[in-house]
Amino acid sequence: MKRTDRIIALTEALLTRPNELLSLGFFAERFETAKSTISEDLVTIKESLRLIGRGYLETIPGAAGGVRFLPSINQEEAEIFLADLAQKLSENERILPGGFLYTTDILYNPAVVRPLGLIFASIFRKKNPEIVVSIETKGIPLALMTADCLGVPAVIVRHGNKVTEGSSVSINYVSGSSKRIQTMILGRKALGIGKKVLIIDDFIKAGGTAKGIVSLMQEFEAEVVGLGILMEDTSWDVPRLVDNYLALLQFGVSDSTGQSAVKPKKMVNFN
Amino acid sequence: MKRTDRIIALTEALLTRPNELLSLGFFAERFETAKSTISEDLVTIKESLRLIGRGYLETIPGAAGGVRFLPSINQEEAEIFLADLAQKLSENERILPGGFLYTTDILYNPAVVRPLGLIFASIFRKKNPEIVVSIETKGIPLALMTADCLGVPAVIVRHGNKVTEGSSVSINYVSGSSKRIQTMILGRKALGIGKKVLIIDDFIKAGGTAKGIVSLMQEFEAEVVGLGILMEDTSWDVPRLVDNYLALLQFGVSDSTGQSAVKPKKMVNFN
Repeated sequence: MKRTDRIIALTEALLTRPNELLSLGFFAERFETAKSTISEDLVTIKESLRLIGRGYLETIPGAAGGVRFLPSINQEEAEIFLADLAQKLSENERILPGGFLYTTDILYNPAVVRPLGLIFASIFRKKNPEIVVSIETKGIPLALMTADCLGVPAVIVRHGNKVTEGSSVSINYVSGSSKRIQTMILGRKALGIGKKVLIIDDFIKAGGTAKGIVSLMQEFEAEVVGLGILMEDTSWDVPRLVDNYLALLQFGVSDSTGQSAVKPKKMVNFN
Repeated sequence: MKRTDRIIALTEALLTRPNELLSLGFFAERFETAKSTISEDLVTIKESLRLIGRGYLETIPGAAGGVRFLPSINQEEAEIFLADLAQKLSENERILPGGFLYTTDILYNPAVVRPLGLIFASIFRKKNPEIVVSIETKGIPLALMTADCLGVPAVIVRHGNKVTEGSSVSINYVSGSSKRIQTMILGRKALGIGKKVLIIDDFIKAGGTAKGIVSLMQEFEAEVVGLGILMEDTSWDVPRLVDNYLALLQFGVSDSTGQSAVKPKKMVNFN
């Protein structure tokens, strides 16, 4: 196998198995070459990926070591992507009766939620979440893509009990905006005890749902290491029930035009 | 930029933007090099990817042309993956009261649903689906990953009406196993008229839900080009309400041991 072919095959293996620790022995066997050769190739790939600014090749030394690709996005690319998305979400025909914003098409489009997951993963990776938690239904794609980029499982809280979940923990919570009492449920099997969890959701208004998930996490003795929200609704003018969240976009009515619009929030520095 | 660095950057760009048509001009500008050089690099990458058997680099000639990476998985790798998954799903502690199989952890684990989406995409790509359709909740991750690998959006049918979906089409259907009348709903905005759709779901028992989705698709004049199911329940001994589906796994009670178990089905040849 020629060096170029091997480099391409190595890059492919690393990128399509993100977060997985792959040993030098694994590659040496697959490409029938010496570990030292693989090691040199990996140095080249690591440096190239660093220059592109889309992910990091982590090398773990020792007998149980190896290499793994940690996907991420650079800040500039993230900001351009979010500005484009905000513009798309500000189109007039997206406002539904009642002033609701239509986002369903966006939230189930992999070409949109894949980069969003990459952004959340880039922001929260340093908190070392072990699980990404969200609530059905529209938070699921965001949570799944974030979990994929972080290399951890996702867990989805449900609104009703299901026979296919086994024994469950349920809590009641008050939706902050509608003031209705609702129930959220999570199967005991779904989440172990004492995990570090990252909560991801698509929208925050009064924060009742987010507060509910945080309470439910306490039942599992989980440590909430982050709360990432795609969009906050700024038309809500009383204090939110949670305040330590990070939102990427803001939805509100412009003071100058009286029109609803979506804007990107100032991004935290995540590099 | 050295050739090796450029090859790595090209491979990265193609793999992380699957199904997107990228022009030679785009790469030539990004890497400040001649289109003819990029073209030679792409021939090398195409051949390498072909040898690995994980995806295909499609070249579209002409001024509006370019290159795009179509992810797929080779048959042998798919069969090994499904055999492993079947074994994992056959663990005793997965059987819940009532004989239900616990699959939630598997269905929300990106490391499992990403390869499953790749398998469905590899099987159904030749049918050229424009949209992947599923129904909440547990079908969502499978549908999303399949859509991602195919480069198309996903659309999720819901059980109840939501104010954030706009005007909707609803149908009533009879669940084949429980015989209860249920409702499924899809927003008018979610799916255009006359699309080619691929239906993906996690489980089929009597087929009432699948039949319901097919009926709902008729309301949108959609053409159902495929019906992919992760697992069929073979304990159901009357004819299913749909028969033209493709299932990857089979769940049933073994005649010899009386134990519930999951087995891989014989795979269609998809290469």
